[in-house]
Amino acid sequence: MMDKSYWIWYYGDYELYHIMKANLRREERGYKRPIFWKQDVPYVNVKFQKTVDSDGGTLKAYFNGSGYIAVNGKRYNEGIEIKVPKGKCKVEALISKENGFPAIFIESDVCPSDETWECNYCAGKFIPAGYNEYFDEAQKNPEIFPFAYENKVPVNKRHINNGILYDFGTELFGYLNIVNADAKEKINIFYGESEEEAIDTEHSLIIDSVEGSKEYQLKQRALRYVFIETECKNIDVSVDYEYLPLEKKGWFKCDNELFNKIYDVAAYTFHLNCREGFLDGIKRDRWVWAGDAYQSARINTYLFQDKAIEQRTAIGLIGKKPVEQNINYILDYSLLWIIGLYEHYMVYGDVKFLSRIYEMATEMIAFSETRINSDGFIEGTEDDWTFIDWAEIDMTGAVCAEQMLLIAAYKAMGNISKVLGKKEEDAFFEKSEVLKKLVNQYYWNEVLGAFIDSYTSGKNNVTRHANIFAIMYDIAEEEKKRNIIKNVLENDSVPQITTPYFKGYELDVMSKVNGLDKVEFILNSYWGEMIRCGCKTIWEEFKPEETGIERYGMYDGKYEKSLCHAWGAGPVYIFGRYYLGVYPTAPGFETFNVEPNLGGLNEIEGVVPVGDGGVKVSLNHNRLKVKASKSGGTLIWKGKHYKIEPDVELVIDC
Amino acid sequence: MMDKSYWIWYYGDYELYHIMKANLRREERGYKRPIFWKQDVPYVNVKFQKTVDSDGGTLKAYFNGSGYIAVNGKRYNEGIEIKVPKGKCKVEALISKENGFPAIFIESDVCPSDETWECNYCAGKFIPAGYNEYFDEAQKNPEIFPFAYENKVPVNKRHINNGILYDFGTELFGYLNIVNADAKEKINIFYGESEEEAIDTEHSLIIDSVEGSKEYQLKQRALRYVFIETECKNIDVSVDYEYLPLEKKGWFKCDNELFNKIYDVAAYTFHLNCREGFLDGIKRDRWVWAGDAYQSARINTYLFQDKAIEQRTAIGLIGKKPVEQNINYILDYSLLWIIGLYEHYMVYGDVKFLSRIYEMATEMIAFSETRINSDGFIEGTEDDWTFIDWAEIDMTGAVCAEQMLLIAAYKAMGNISKVLGKKEEDAFFEKSEVLKKLVNQYYWNEVLGAFIDSYTSGKNNVTRHANIFAIMYDIAEEEKKRNIIKNVLENDSVPQITTPYFKGYELDVMSKVNGLDKVEFILNSYWGEMIRCGCKTIWEEFKPEETGIERYGMYDGKYEKSLCHAWGAGPVYIFGRYYLGVYPTAPGFETFNVEPNLGGLNEIEGVVPVGDGGVKVSLNHNRLKVKASKSGGTLIWKGKHYKIEPDVELVIDC
Repeated sequence: MMDKSYWIWYYGDYELYHIMKANLRREERGYKRPIFWKQDVPYVNVKFQKTVDSDGGTLKAYFNGSGYIAVNGKRYNEGIEIKVPKGKCKVEALISKENGFPAIFIESDVCPSDETWECNYCAGKFIPAGYNEYFDEAQKNPEIFPFAYENKVPVNKRHINNGILYDFGTELFGYLNIVNADAKEKINIFYGESEEEAIDTEHSLIIDSVEGSKEYQLKQRALRYVFIETECKNIDVSVDYEYLPLEKKGWFKCDNELFNKIYDVAAYTFHLNCREGFLDGIKRDRWVWAGDAYQSARINTYLFQDKAIEQRTAIGLIGKKPVEQNINYILDYSLLWIIGLYEHYMVYGDVKFLSRIYEMATEMIAFSETRINSDGFIEGTEDDWTFIDWAEIDMTGAVCAEQMLLIAAYKAMGNISKVLGKKEEDAFFEKSEVLKKLVNQYYWNEVLGAFIDSYTSGKNNVTRHANIFAIMYDIAEEEKKRNIIKNVLENDSVPQITTPYFKGYELDVMSKVNGLDKVEFILNSYWGEMIRCGCKTIWEEFKPEETGIERYGMYDGKYEKSLCHAWGAGPVYIFGRYYLGVYPTAPGFETFNVEPNLGGLNEIEGVVPVGDGGVKVSLNHNRLKVKASKSGGTLIWKGKHYKIEPDVELVIDC
Repeated sequence: MMDKSYWIWYYGDYELYHIMKANLRREERGYKRPIFWKQDVPYVNVKFQKTVDSDGGTLKAYFNGSGYIAVNGKRYNEGIEIKVPKGKCKVEALISKENGFPAIFIESDVCPSDETWECNYCAGKFIPAGYNEYFDEAQKNPEIFPFAYENKVPVNKRHINNGILYDFGTELFGYLNIVNADAKEKINIFYGESEEEAIDTEHSLIIDSVEGSKEYQLKQRALRYVFIETECKNIDVSVDYEYLPLEKKGWFKCDNELFNKIYDVAAYTFHLNCREGFLDGIKRDRWVWAGDAYQSARINTYLFQDKAIEQRTAIGLIGKKPVEQNINYILDYSLLWIIGLYEHYMVYGDVKFLSRIYEMATEMIAFSETRINSDGFIEGTEDDWTFIDWAEIDMTGAVCAEQMLLIAAYKAMGNISKVLGKKEEDAFFEKSEVLKKLVNQYYWNEVLGAFIDSYTSGKNNVTRHANIFAIMYDIAEEEKKRNIIKNVLENDSVPQITTPYFKGYELDVMSKVNGLDKVEFILNSYWGEMIRCGCKTIWEEFKPEETGIERYGMYDGKYEKSLCHAWGAGPVYIFGRYYLGVYPTAPGFETFNVEPNLGGLNEIEGVVPVGDGGVKVSLNHNRLKVKASKSGGTLIWKGKHYKIEPDVELVIDC
């Protein structure tokens, strides 16, 4: 009887490989466009080893790559049944692969390949091998990412100009199939997230061209619309929709149909961008960006609560030693990556992951510290991109919002070090506190009652961004928080945020400190307006005042704006976190609070996943019902605390 | 009119890629055996850029990989003729390649791709691109290493057992061709460096098996003999001999026919192992080892004086940041790599190369310093292999020979820093001096009049190795040198060296300090014995007392000993360096000395390459003739100095 075997590899290389593939796959009108920051790669030769003490048995190995497996020093190729002698025995393998990543699968009644095997990269310490539960058969190739597929047909078809325009009803990602074509005809294909883009054959960003066959399957593309230049009337198309099969563990419904629509559209937008990692937008970059991913992880917590995608994303973003630049070149994204690690730990309680990523986290923060100027503030060099948001922030010298993130990153590193029992804990907390004082001293403007962007320019410019972070990461004291609410958040003369990315943070902060009134206003006016404009997915940026084709422009490109951008799915998080009111109070939701809030709604209902269980909340003006499938929950309602027993419905008349 | 273009890549990636291919190609009876130390890989995405100010023109790019080329921010694919506008213009490209290395070739009258282009790896500083003069056409693929080929046929053929044994007369490396086979027959092929190995089908290390065709070309293998198991009498074979087309710039002849044979066999052995880099042996590992390569570079200086192979080897060995282990895992090999860099500079005077490798050299020495113990001596950890030589050295604690190498490595780093005007110069020289004093204090044994291997074991064991290095790197003072000669080198109770690797160093030292008598004795008794035994190439290890099949055994394998090992070619260096007596006194042979020495011979003649020229020396008991094709030479003869004018023969009656 053989024990359960998995493909094993150097921990992290599976994740890094698939993120790399995504990062190098971007294509625009006729040329490829790889990421413009450094792409790390898997190790090319990996040693695997295990010492067993057994009654003997056999093993048979399969390689992804080439090399050997050795039993007590005698080497063999793959595919050979090898005797494992009785008693103590050392089994080793050395596999190399130049393209892809080395991996091994061992069928055995003695030493099946699993996480109890150790490996190194022919240097470094031996660590437990990486594996993935899906790859449990020799025939499954770990270099092929396990997506799911579903055939989709257009909901609409129109003959226009010299071709046919198809509408799939909503955005998709997948492989376009064309059948009944004329093999002699050269067919040009123009994809569009909008109808305008698909038929604007001079400018549509993603195009293809085929000829010589009656049937085609094209490359994987994002599309809602596709325009096919053809004289053939019989042509038929469909899309093999490719997606990550994730279980929707969380949901939300309320009596406001617009909000329900926002939730559904946001959840769909988010799901389309959940692939090898958290992608930014499904059409254009399809790259993994740490800031976008930070927001995505929060959304994921309340929708799929899928740990694996967060870990793939984190590993893919940080790569391997040495850290030579900011993640995605962006000063703030490096810090958000660090902050996100601790938030990830709070949701999933995965100490093992934390301990494995710790070395790279210390490398990352040490790199960030190379950007600290003589005043003690983090400041981008010419090799860094100080992003924060697409907004008019005064970027002179050290920027306030970056300091807020560094304070939070130090705190996260302190917390992570504490979990892992690392001696660096105190130093990180100390650094966080020191910087917090400095920031209050240099950036707080008493006259304006707000944090200013820059203390060196003399402009005393106030934007929402730093002030939002100051509340989000609990950096401002209570009085300052009140000031910020009044002088910044509720002050319409401070420019509005235009990206749903930062709107997500704004909603978070407002929900936390200012009740849900303003939140509902923003949901209504900003996300609601997208829905009213007919958007089936959430956009990268949205300016209600823009109309017509100009709405699709960004980055100097007519259709460069992403119309399906994950960072717009923030409401999913807001509904789960602040309406259903569920959040962890110990790692992995071992304990959690449920603090429901009806806001201005009449009825809400939904489920939030809490680790290996879920909690269902329903609330209207008359009654609150809470039921969890696991222990550890505390209901907080009108100042009172109630213990939530597993599988017992708490019913409270309001 | 287009200007000259070359394929360009991130500097070093061409070299690293081809060394990697060699390192991962090793194969033994049915399985592959990649290197067991870390293999670094080329960068996967590379940016290229150039700013031009011109009257305008065009460009057309070709990619090795995928990506784009952009002119003033507008992006294009490869293969398109693009206008370059008049005036200042920025041309950029971003190319990615997952397998291989990104490269670009640009035909242009404005900005042809060459070394004036800069690149980075989407991180790091922009540096001048790497290129190779051979790759000057778009059609030449820089991932295909430019070897030369020659068809060779067997010199002998014998029907034995159930097949045919072919003898190619001498060792070759290449592709075996089989013709006139029976397509229905499965043919087994057994290669051998020795006849015994080829016909010992149970144990021959390299084997192949083919069927289904009348003609085959097999994988590239080393062989002198090949035994083909077949019932087909008509079979015919040949080998497409694959070699690096190097010009033999140096040669040596004398009146001793055995020495001439040693020279020729050594030179042939060496050439077979000169490929992507300096390989150790052509049959077994075919790996690049820094110690072997150090010796190879000295031989190369007097035979091919090929700069490129030394640089490919150095780059391939050191790889990329971070340095996480010793080169080839071997403590001494890291140090020899550093020492070799300065010797390389002295021969070729290539400051550009030195400046490009400097960062990795400082990383390497810093890593070596992590192995310095509390007494101040370098000492291998369990992660290191303290090799020195295949010999009975007392390896307790810090080993003397390693200290000798560290002293020399510090000095080399001091010298390199000096050339490059780096501030670290003084610190390196200082460290070298401090360690030298410590070594004399701890390792010199007054009673034995020699350096001992270990000062911690109490065994006071003396081997030749540390004492040879002490002279080779000028570490022992004059009196100690005299002691070493008497008590170690000329003392037969100190065990003889068994590898031609260290014999090479012994010859060097003896030639330098002890005249050529003993050198000739060793050439005669050691290398001469190999020739008398019928060796057509120099072996990895040679023990004259061994006979029969046991001679071929090593590493617990019946035929694992390499019978064509580059490190045995030391005599090539000795004849050029000490008989013809030519060596550089300024970088790149800008100045050089000629100090001929007849030793115990009656007549010597030969040429030593000296940078862009050569110097011919002939000497017998009556007459010395010296002629150089370039300036800078000084003849030293019987204590007198003569200036050697270019192309003017100096003739001196002895």
